[in-house]
Amino acid sequence: MFFASDNWAGVHPKIAESLTSHASGYASAYGTSDQDKRIEEHFNSLFEREVSVFFVATGTAANSLALASVARPGGVTLCHYEAHVTADEGGAPEFLTGATRLLPVEGGHGKIDSGALAKALSGFDTPSVHHGQPMAVTVTQATEAGTVYKLNELDEIAALTKAKNLPLHMDGARFANALVALDATPAEMTWKRGIDILSFGGTKNGCWCAEAIVFMKPEMAKEMPYIRKRSAQLFSKTRFISAQLEAYLDNGLWLEMASHANTMADRLRAGLQSKNTARLAWDTQANEVFALLDKTSAERARTKGARFYDWSIPRENPYLVGEDETLVRLVTSFATTETEVNQFIDVV
Amino acid sequence: MFFASDNWAGVHPKIAESLTSHASGYASAYGTSDQDKRIEEHFNSLFEREVSVFFVATGTAANSLALASVARPGGVTLCHYEAHVTADEGGAPEFLTGATRLLPVEGGHGKIDSGALAKALSGFDTPSVHHGQPMAVTVTQATEAGTVYKLNELDEIAALTKAKNLPLHMDGARFANALVALDATPAEMTWKRGIDILSFGGTKNGCWCAEAIVFMKPEMAKEMPYIRKRSAQLFSKTRFISAQLEAYLDNGLWLEMASHANTMADRLRAGLQSKNTARLAWDTQANEVFALLDKTSAERARTKGARFYDWSIPRENPYLVGEDETLVRLVTSFATTETEVNQFIDVV
Amino acid sequence: MFFASDNWAGVHPKIAESLTSHASGYASAYGTSDQDKRIEEHFNSLFEREVSVFFVATGTAANSLALASVARPGGVTLCHYEAHVTADEGGAPEFLTGATRLLPVEGGHGKIDSGALAKALSGFDTPSVHHGQPMAVTVTQATEAGTVYKLNELDEIAALTKAKNLPLHMDGARFANALVALDATPAEMTWKRGIDILSFGGTKNGCWCAEAIVFMKPEMAKEMPYIRKRSAQLFSKTRFISAQLEAYLDNGLWLEMASHANTMADRLRAGLQSKNTARLAWDTQANEVFALLDKTSAERARTKGARFYDWSIPRENPYLVGEDETLVRLVTSFATTETEVNQFIDVV
Amino acid sequence: MFFASDNWAGVHPKIAESLTSHASGYASAYGTSDQDKRIEEHFNSLFEREVSVFFVATGTAANSLALASVARPGGVTLCHYEAHVTADEGGAPEFLTGATRLLPVEGGHGKIDSGALAKALSGFDTPSVHHGQPMAVTVTQATEAGTVYKLNELDEIAALTKAKNLPLHMDGARFANALVALDATPAEMTWKRGIDILSFGGTKNGCWCAEAIVFMKPEMAKEMPYIRKRSAQLFSKTRFISAQLEAYLDNGLWLEMASHANTMADRLRAGLQSKNTARLAWDTQANEVFALLDKTSAERARTKGARFYDWSIPRENPYLVGEDETLVRLVTSFATTETEVNQFIDVV
Repeated sequence: MFFASDNWAGVHPKIAESLTSHASGYASAYGTSDQDKRIEEHFNSLFEREVSVFFVATGTAANSLALASVARPGGVTLCHYEAHVTADEGGAPEFLTGATRLLPVEGGHGKIDSGALAKALSGFDTPSVHHGQPMAVTVTQATEAGTVYKLNELDEIAALTKAKNLPLHMDGARFANALVALDATPAEMTWKRGIDILSFGGTKNGCWCAEAIVFMKPEMAKEMPYIRKRSAQLFSKTRFISAQLEAYLDNGLWLEMASHANTMADRLRAGLQSKNTARLAWDTQANEVFALLDKTSAERARTKGARFYDWSIPRENPYLVGEDETLVRLVTSFATTETEVNQFIDVV
Repeated sequence: MFFASDNWAGVHPKIAESLTSHASGYASAYGTSDQDKRIEEHFNSLFEREVSVFFVATGTAANSLALASVARPGGVTLCHYEAHVTADEGGAPEFLTGATRLLPVEGGHGKIDSGALAKALSGFDTPSVHHGQPMAVTVTQATEAGTVYKLNELDEIAALTKAKNLPLHMDGARFANALVALDATPAEMTWKRGIDILSFGGTKNGCWCAEAIVFMKPEMAKEMPYIRKRSAQLFSKTRFISAQLEAYLDNGLWLEMASHANTMADRLRAGLQSKNTARLAWDTQANEVFALLDKTSAERARTKGARFYDWSIPRENPYLVGEDETLVRLVTSFATTETEVNQFIDVV
Repeated sequence: MFFASDNWAGVHPKIAESLTSHASGYASAYGTSDQDKRIEEHFNSLFEREVSVFFVATGTAANSLALASVARPGGVTLCHYEAHVTADEGGAPEFLTGATRLLPVEGGHGKIDSGALAKALSGFDTPSVHHGQPMAVTVTQATEAGTVYKLNELDEIAALTKAKNLPLHMDGARFANALVALDATPAEMTWKRGIDILSFGGTKNGCWCAEAIVFMKPEMAKEMPYIRKRSAQLFSKTRFISAQLEAYLDNGLWLEMASHANTMADRLRAGLQSKNTARLAWDTQANEVFALLDKTSAERARTKGARFYDWSIPRENPYLVGEDETLVRLVTSFATTETEVNQFIDVV
Repeated sequence: MFFASDNWAGVHPKIAESLTSHASGYASAYGTSDQDKRIEEHFNSLFEREVSVFFVATGTAANSLALASVARPGGVTLCHYEAHVTADEGGAPEFLTGATRLLPVEGGHGKIDSGALAKALSGFDTPSVHHGQPMAVTVTQATEAGTVYKLNELDEIAALTKAKNLPLHMDGARFANALVALDATPAEMTWKRGIDILSFGGTKNGCWCAEAIVFMKPEMAKEMPYIRKRSAQLFSKTRFISAQLEAYLDNGLWLEMASHANTMADRLRAGLQSKNTARLAWDTQANEVFALLDKTSAERARTKGARFYDWSIPRENPYLVGEDETLVRLVTSFATTETEVNQFIDVV
């Protein structure tokens, strides 16, 4: 019963196989091989336009270097207050962008509230060196709270950023889970909505280590080769990334895995709602479930081998958690089985 | 005939196998799993002392973060003028150490000359904010020039650094090749010589991506977890590194691969020396051969499919290359075959 | 009627005189002259202990470099949410500390609430690379809200920081105004309370440009000479700073000027309280007054030549400002005259 | 007999007077006052075009922030190997540009050799992330070696930088001395030659602290306000800079002072050449003289109160200094008197 995080799972067998099949032979290094280029081109068809793709080591790197590509002196990036960039990346976005800032914006259930964003942006309407200058807005899709921005919600945010001439970044650590939840295409969920740069995450969805920064407008990526190298994020044997992505994207494996994870989350939600000892903290659409367990059940589940993390009470709902309750996060993945879900519901 | 670089090769089948065997199951993320800890402990026995080990994404990251761990304001790291840190890492050591400097020191065939080092260090004997302060010395073993520091040569350098109370770092991107060349143990070639921090490279020697920073004195690594995270170098599914290293270190596979690569280089050297149309530029001990080919042979070899890079004329020997000659670098790896070597010698 | 800021005033005639008297003659540069050393020694007697003093160009530099001296990778500095470092320094503290973070803490009227601080610090009790590590706490004395921490309030904060083994910094841009308000000695308001590093500001209190970082424990300042130089904050003709400070500290001129400024603020407060068209927003103790003016009076005052800034509504009191009111900040200085104050009260 | 540096002198009485005359009254802060704007406009007429001017605290800041304004990831600035930026600024240019690099180029007597520059630039003709990308060329006028680039020498360098589309920066710490030596106008020695950004130094030539960055094309300065603020180089009471510059530029005082300094250097050169115990190390044109004194005379001069620094033997002339000789630098300033010069020549 492993619901701690989707990065506790290993890799899909087809991805392991693909790696093995690329083990022999020579290929030019540092992303210049035919194999690497083939995968990059695959992203063009995936996104239905010419994009510019950069593999990096971690999701934190993808986010940080995406922001580095639009960094300005005294720059400020607006994000949700629970966004991974501000809450969980140990200062990497600040460090790798040359000491720009993150400005947390309010909003329920992991989504930036567009009113709050408009207000925060208006704080920069009168330029002032004392307060810095806005450099980007970033949204997380699916969010840290397991929710998914609807397409029109992305449109609203994009309208605000475009009005200020700011680039819009999407942290897609759980991009596939969001796509499946919305039944949208990559193009529909990104540049058709106004997303300029995407952190395309594969690791949480069945790869070992496959993260890419995707620039929807290649001209915005001019400095990226240098940004990536100076941040020590340019692999020599890039094949080991592209081989993973080859299998990942082949025949829709990625969407299949995400779909499975989301379905397991649905099952978990449904199961928990039928319990007296548990209730959903809020509704979610992707592969995360947030539940309020009574403390005894949470304790019992852990004793019986369930692994999951306690979660912080959201700012916008300080009285969410009852006295005898614990707020927990349950994450499903491509590897989650129905048996695990059933077992968990049973022990709670 | 692929002699361009050892990072053009793929991975050893046993390493691919190991990865596959760890594909299923759950493990806690960010380097905290039992598997990760087991490999870290293996480094203790490998180095015959308690060491502190940090996996990172690239050799450039290993070098840069090793130096970041000893960075000081206005800091200066002394290195050979051809060292990878100064010649080939796109400014990553400077960037990831918070803008410290590299000070190139002279020396023949990739090795720091101890006299030149003593002189360079003495430049800091009178403290001056205008000139910065020394923070580390770094040596590359095997060097970029294919040579290997003898143990007593390392002693000489270590004596100089200890006299100034400076940490000594070793860039071991080709650590195994050097070990094999010297027939030394990891302990003998590192802390017994005065090395404080090692960039332990596996990628160039048959891994996909396996680089580790090894602190010989764990107390020097106190800030490293934060340094690594802020540099976006902390993998979530760390298993994929430790699984590689498990196979790499098992049963001496790593030394076997390095030994093979070195032997292929020996063979290449021997073959070239028997030629009229080629001569060795200088003697090497690890898996790189530097040769002066006459331009026609170099051209012919390339036409027939040989892949290798031209190399810069070393500062200390400006008249090395004859008018009709080209200086080339030939790198062998675990994957190099005798057939490749024979073929190359034939076409030259 | 200039109440916009104390940095709109010029310099006290005695300071101008002192500069002129040092115009001729030679002195060794970069802070090494006898004159510079004499002033540094004066700080020892001022603070009743051996301190280490570094002149820098601006208050922002003093704060930023003070924090740089205690910076750690992934470091987080806790400050009041309205503190100058986070609200008004254009990202300099982040930039000059190598991309550390500022974590705003709540508290009324510009003062960190010790309960909120305790809670924020406890967030780091379980070390986590994802969240960074605490590196310092900073208080502003007098605060941005014109209030002054009482000595026992400083004790409370110091107790919390010492318990976590964290350095405590004081932004003393208005240090003299606070001293006078508390009728305390420099020692009593700093190291006797647990302050480790002080930004000692002279500019706002009658100097042209005289800011110093004072380390209460000189051993904490070991890297400062290099930190200051790499930040381009080491003046060559340091005399021009020490000459200002010579006059500033001579015969208590600095306290006299601060006392005058505070008295003018008292007079302003008293005058406003007697008005129907104005009320104090909160009580202040130093040289700033925050008032709620009805919009017509504010407008009228401006038309008649009064200069002052509107101020943000404090988070802790969102309903402070009535519909027809404006919250304004009024700052007095050594140069403020009774006539100015009277005139202002008349026009409001 | 003070020949250690021109920054050992104080200020010209007229500059002290000007400061005093601006001591009273109010002026808006942070460079927004009428006084500041008037001086900025004066630069327009001085340079015979619309320029953009930024006051900063030190010459090191002027150089570092000028380069920060053209910084690129993995950026490399080419400079003379003895340039102040690389030899004497404690890593500030690297730190304040976000960890870019300086690449020293050879050349005799402090001047970049255009052939060496062409070769160094050609090293970037094939873009490579491993080697970084060129971002600027910087020249020092007058040079650290007391020489002055002729206008056509600047043209040669500018032609090379323009061909690579690189900005050209001039470190004008001794700008006035060079102007006087060449009998050129500011426009002729800067933008008419292809200089894009100038560090305009007043401190070494009779000011307390007056350094400005001058952008010949204001559109290149768009990010500078933020760059300056994040580097803590924005003074609040900017008047104290502009008041100095007002007197400095008034009625040609600056050129008068530079002319005096240069004349004193001429006198020193002439005097030394007439000596048996001294010879000029090389010819100079501005306010520095480099002399080879026999060791006894150097010793005697110091005993009798002469202050001057020993100097490093230039790379291009390793056999310059005889066994019994010392290479010394003698710097004159606006404050140097004929008596000092005569005395010095007498004691040598």
